[in-house]
Parts: sequence; structure tokens; C-alpha cells
Amino acid sequence: MTDSALNIGFIGLGIMGAPMAGHLLEAGHRLSVHTRRPLAPALAQSGATPCASARAVAERADIVITMLPDTPDVEAVLFGADGVAAGLRAGKLVVDMSSISPIATKAFAQRVNALGCDYLDAPVSGGEVGAKNATLSIMVGGPEAAFERARPLFERMGKNITRVGGNGDGQTAKVANQIIVALTIEAVAEALLFAAKAGADPARVRQALMGGFASSKVLEVHGERMVQRRFEPGFRIELHQKDLALALGSARALGVSLPSTAATQELFNACAAQGGRAWDHSALVKALEALAHFEIGQRPA
Amino acid sequence: MTDSALNIGFIGLGIMGAPMAGHLLEAGHRLSVHTRRPLAPALAQSGATPCASARAVAERADIVITMLPDTPDVEAVLFGADGVAAGLRAGKLVVDMSSISPIATKAFAQRVNALGCDYLDAPVSGGEVGAKNATLSIMVGGPEAAFERARPLFERMGKNITRVGGNGDGQTAKVANQIIVALTIEAVAEALLFAAKAGADPARVRQALMGGFASSKVLEVHGERMVQRRFEPGFRIELHQKDLALALGSARALGVSLPSTAATQELFNACAAQGGRAWDHSALVKALEALAHFEIGQRPA
Repeated sequence: MTDSALNIGFIGLGIMGAPMAGHLLEAGHRLSVHTRRPLAPALAQSGATPCASARAVAERADIVITMLPDTPDVEAVLFGADGVAAGLRAGKLVVDMSSISPIATKAFAQRVNALGCDYLDAPVSGGEVGAKNATLSIMVGGPEAAFERARPLFERMGKNITRVGGNGDGQTAKVANQIIVALTIEAVAEALLFAAKAGADPARVRQALMGGFASSKVLEVHGERMVQRRFEPGFRIELHQKDLALALGSARALGVSLPSTAATQELFNACAAQGGRAWDHSALVKALEALAHFEIGQRPA
Repeated sequence: MTDSALNIGFIGLGIMGAPMAGHLLEAGHRLSVHTRRPLAPALAQSGATPCASARAVAERADIVITMLPDTPDVEAVLFGADGVAAGLRAGKLVVDMSSISPIATKAFAQRVNALGCDYLDAPVSGGEVGAKNATLSIMVGGPEAAFERARPLFERMGKNITRVGGNGDGQTAKVANQIIVALTIEAVAEALLFAAKAGADPARVRQALMGGFASSKVLEVHGERMVQRRFEPGFRIELHQKDLALALGSARALGVSLPSTAATQELFNACAAQGGRAWDHSALVKALEALAHFEIGQRPA
């Protein structure tokens, strides 16, 4: 089934961006792309048009999507030499699906608005699997009309699509999401490690707690990983470090104190000290295990 | 519907114990009770037999249930002068449904076992509402046969009944539960406060996060309370302080480090400093709001 074809620009064809762009091509849209690296073969064969610059992409497209690693990358692609802004004309729409600073996002939106164009921040969660299976959660900030314009594209890439509010609010929701996920992983890790050290079976404790007030998606999924010692990602610790760095940097700029976010970031840093940047974020438990000189799965002495 | 009548002793007829004992009476069991305070009228009228001491309760009953505030209370009732132990004969069963130390519990169980009796630790969660509605979660530690013997009683008082393992493991599961609930409340509080300070609507952020990896019972229930500013209990901060004190004391004794549990206890202490011992535990957010000099529900300057 194809949608009515739109002229889409897509910049940032990495692990996430490539499958997301692929879904838009499959839906029948015309894609103009720009990438520093050679185009993924699947995309090249499926009819995406490579452009020499972000500016060229913006000149050809009506809706320009960016999916980039971090705030400085988005700033460079939007406003750098031969960037998107240089190719925009009034009425176009910029959709940043990267996970970046909510504060910088509000400034980016104003600069794009000044060119007569709408801006949406639309970060995602769900990772590589969600990108491939088009099951991403998409948290959107920006004007309602722009959201409705982009909605058919979002629906090709994700399942759980929410407009949270105005520009920046999508990024804010994503940061809030990553705070909760990290701190809940830490909570489950402390509880299961305590249980194991007290001589209980952490798998049975986890099971007993499901369904009550301690129940969460993290207890279900990450708790299971901790018990099973399955730490291949999933979602890498280094990515969650980036997200918590966004949270802590934004908190400092906003004037709000996030004590447990800061402490949890330090535990991720401790995992990195063990060589764990590429472990799944549930491996946070290993930092606590190092402190306890004891592992879930051991029997206490 | 009545069960085949058993001789039950019940010691500790407070906010939780009184309705729990009431369910056992309604089921047709014979109840012997002992209490320092006058017996609740409903129980007295419904046929519970008051006894002069815990020892007298244990002499009359085949299964003795205790539901008391803390570890020293259980120790005094079981092993103090005219305590339960003095009235036990081989073959009786002691069921402690209080929330107390898992380490002390193992010692209590051994002392009861030495008298030829089984012991179950069977702490509950679900609070006063769960006690009244017989919907408590019950986490049980002790021998399988003793668990099966007590199961008809548990089924009159609760819904979600799990044997976690041997003696102490029920209390360990309860401590683990309270660690997770407290730290998840803290996680949700940091995230929603961050979102509000960043200018987003915390209610919409909470909604956007439900269903993803950040979803939890706490985000659903306590997150809603934080947004609505509904801090009447629920579950009182002073009770959660007691539970985290159990966690931290046990952790010290066991040799395991719980950094976020310790930090979260300090935030509960900060709520107490504001006069909030009797607030619902979701009011933990107020300690973070004091740090941020900003409340969820305010619009940022």
C-alpha cells in the first residue's frame, strides 16, 4: 500500500535512520538523501536520490527529516555551510528525529520558523529493533498542523505517536523517558542484588514482585536480563550515558537538581571503567556488583 | 462460604491486622486474639476470643499469626515473657505477616523450629485498602508443607500469594519490593519535575511515556498523584522510611551497598523535615521541588 507520494529529504542514514528512511521509500515517497558515508546499498537500489549537500536535500524536499547522533551534529546539518537552512523556502517542514537538547531545540525551531518554515522535534524510543520493525515510540513537539502534516510519515516509522506539546517538548519527554528508564534499572538492580545477597533466588523474587506496585517494564525486561546475565545490547550503555548527559546538562541550564540521575550516570561511568560501554544498559547492575564484591547468581558465603 | 474451621491465633489487631483477622472470622475460623489495646468492637462482636497473653493465644491455637509494627515487636511477642514460644507445642505453625528484618526472621524461624513448630514469614503489600478488600499481595518464606497448610488463610486475606523460598525469603522479597517502589517514585519525580521545569506539561509527558520502557505501576499511580498534587495517603512516608531503614540495616549486615536506596531515604527524611511524615510516599517529589525551588504545576519563569 502506498501513500500519496511526498518529496522527503532524509539526512542521517545510520543504524536508526537507514531503516526509517527505508519504510518511507516502501510507502512510495520520493526520498532525497545526503550522507557523509556511502549510501547503504538497499537504499541506493530502492530509488533514494543522493544529494551533494544538506542544502541540496532541502532544495528538493518539502519535508526534511534529520536523524543524527547529537546536538552539535543537528546544528551543523541545519545551520552550517551548505546546510538545510540555506535550502529552505517558506512552507517547508523540518522534522528532527534525533535525540538532542530540548533547550537547543527551541532555538533551532525559532531559526527555522524565521525562514517561514515549521519545525517538529520528534525523538524516538525503541532502538534499532523498533526502527527496523516500524514500532518506534515517537514523542513530538511542535504546532498541531505541522504534526498532522508529518503524521503519515510517523505512522510508517512507529506505533506509539504522541504530540506532547510545543517545540522542545518532544525532546523533553524523551529526556524524561531516559531518566526514568535508567533510574528504574538502578532500582531493580539494587533490589535483586540485595535479594541475592540475602540468600533468596532473585528470579523468584522478581516473579513475586511482578503485578504489584514494584511492577514495571524494566523489572520485566531488564530484571530478566540481570538474572539471566544477558548483557548483549539491546540499548548500549554509551547511548544511555549520552542521554543522561543531556538530562544533566539541561538540568544545570534550567536550574533543577537531579540527584539520582547524576548518581546513576556515575554508575554507568563505572561500567565504562570495566570496559562496558557497549554492554546493554541492564548491565548497570555490574557496577553495584563491583561495590558489593558479589554477583547476582552467586550464592552468598 | 465457610472453610473447615481452624483454631487460629491472631496477635496485632491494628489498621492492617483487624480487617485481616476479620476475614478469617468471616470464613468460619475460631480466633483467639491478644492485644494491648481494647479489642475493635467489630471483632469482639464477631466472636473472637480475647486472651490475657500471647502465650495463652499460642496454647489455644494451632496456627498463630502475628501482624506487628517492627522487628522488636515481633521478637517481644514471640520470645518475651508470656510470649508465643512459651505456649507452643510441637506441630503448631507460626506465621509472621509483619514486615520486619529478613535476617532476624531467619533466627526467629530457627528458634520456633527448635520447639518442633514450623515458621512462615509472610509479609504483605497493598496497605489498608488491600487488607480491607482482601486483595493483599503476600510474599511467603518457609517450608512448602507449611505454606500449603496456611494457604487457605492467605487466600482469605490476599490475592497474589507467592512462596518465594525458605525462611527469610518472604521478608527479603518485601524489602526488595519497597526498594523498587521508593526508587521508582524518585525516578518518576525527577523526570516529571525536569519536564515541568523545561516548560512541558507533566501530565502529557506522563501520558506519552506510558506504554514504553518507562512504564510502571508507579508512573501510572504515583505519577498521577504528583501531577494532581494528591498527597493524602495512600502509603505514608514514615512507613516507607521504616522499610528503607530495614533495607539499609540489612544491607550493612549482609555486606552489600545500596547507594540509591540510601539517597532516597535522605529525600524521605527531607520530606519529614517539611512536616510530611504522614504524606503519601509520592510526595517524595516535594523534596526535589525544594531543591529546585520549583513545583510541578508551576510554569517556569
